[in-house]
Amino acid sequence: MEQLRKKIKTDGSVLSSSILKVDAFLNHQIDPQLMNNIGLEFAKKFSESGVTKIVTIESSGIAPAVMAGLHLHVPVVFARKQKSLTLVNDLITASVYSFTKKESNEISVSRKFLNDNDTVLIIDDFLANGQAALGLEEIVSKTKASIAGFGIVIEKGFQDGGRLLREKGYRVESLAVIHSLENGSVEFENAAERKAERIR
Amino acid sequence: MEQLRKKIKTDGSVLSSSILKVDAFLNHQIDPQLMNNIGLEFAKKFSESGVTKIVTIESSGIAPAVMAGLHLHVPVVFARKQKSLTLVNDLITASVYSFTKKESNEISVSRKFLNDNDTVLIIDDFLANGQAALGLEEIVSKTKASIAGFGIVIEKGFQDGGRLLREKGYRVESLAVIHSLENGSVEFENAAERKAERIR
Repeated sequence: MEQLRKKIKTDGSVLSSSILKVDAFLNHQIDPQLMNNIGLEFAKKFSESGVTKIVTIESSGIAPAVMAGLHLHVPVVFARKQKSLTLVNDLITASVYSFTKKESNEISVSRKFLNDNDTVLIIDDFLANGQAALGLEEIVSKTKASIAGFGIVIEKGFQDGGRLLREKGYRVESLAVIHSLENGSVEFENAAERKAERIR
Repeated sequence: MEQLRKKIKTDGSVLSSSILKVDAFLNHQIDPQLMNNIGLEFAKKFSESGVTKIVTIESSGIAPAVMAGLHLHVPVVFARKQKSLTLVNDLITASVYSFTKKESNEISVSRKFLNDNDTVLIIDDFLANGQAALGLEEIVSKTKASIAGFGIVIEKGFQDGGRLLREKGYRVESLAVIHSLENGSVEFENAAERKAERIR
């Protein structure tokens, strides 16, 4: 998605060869117009997939997920990282390991919001090692709902998450795929190249 | 806002005389179409206020805030309840006491996203005791930005938050104001009555 790649170039900052900071428009300050276009893009990509529900994880997944839900006309459920006091009954949980924080956290979704006949689109802001995405997959897989695929705003192509999900047979649509953050600069993967690789 | 009051009646559930559960459309599962209309309503109410930025708090404030930002054409910043590893420099913080959790938590916003000439609309999903709203007010007040007012999705009129903010001279626009949750049923405040009271 050209608008997103441009925004990453102009407003993102490379903190290290593995960390891209996008707090200016995605995960602290949010650009609502960009989120709307991101939601539209996800809606286009999954328009034929019969999606009935979007599942994401708080907090940074919420904005792109809600915009995708707006354009796909389906509800959004966000997994919680902490248990709410008024959300205690019948939770589906998964354990998510954070490589950056070096700790495991339980994430949870209330069972009543995942129906067995749901077709779920999982959306998140980042795909790096894939732990959050796999946690959301685990939660949905504990029901009889099916997974239409993953909609990712920014995939770090040099980390394992995308490969793990694709090897499991999932469709993963990432709106920007980063090939490298070496030398303080963002290099995107060439989508055409990646398609060719997959066909080979 | 009639659509919101109807949704609270049909999909909300009263857990006690002080707790209304709206996890079916606001703070766990989210109804994006309703959020869009809520955003539109906030945008209408504050269209003449010169708002340049919306500030909210993770996680449940994000959806209504981003929709308001979409319609007001301004960026949204959400205060974090936990410090991010890549968001460590120059934070503005406030301490927020949670009556439900009986603990204080620090919330924070990166200073670079609040400019001295910003006019800020503070949005949140609930206004009860007002602790989160006052925490956000404290953060904005630590800069030279001004506060256009507060946009609240659901105000518990029988708790102190709304009074505290209005006594401080702030404009508070709540899209649904709950008068009582006694006997397991939701009773809304009559907007006309409240206006009359304020005029008296």
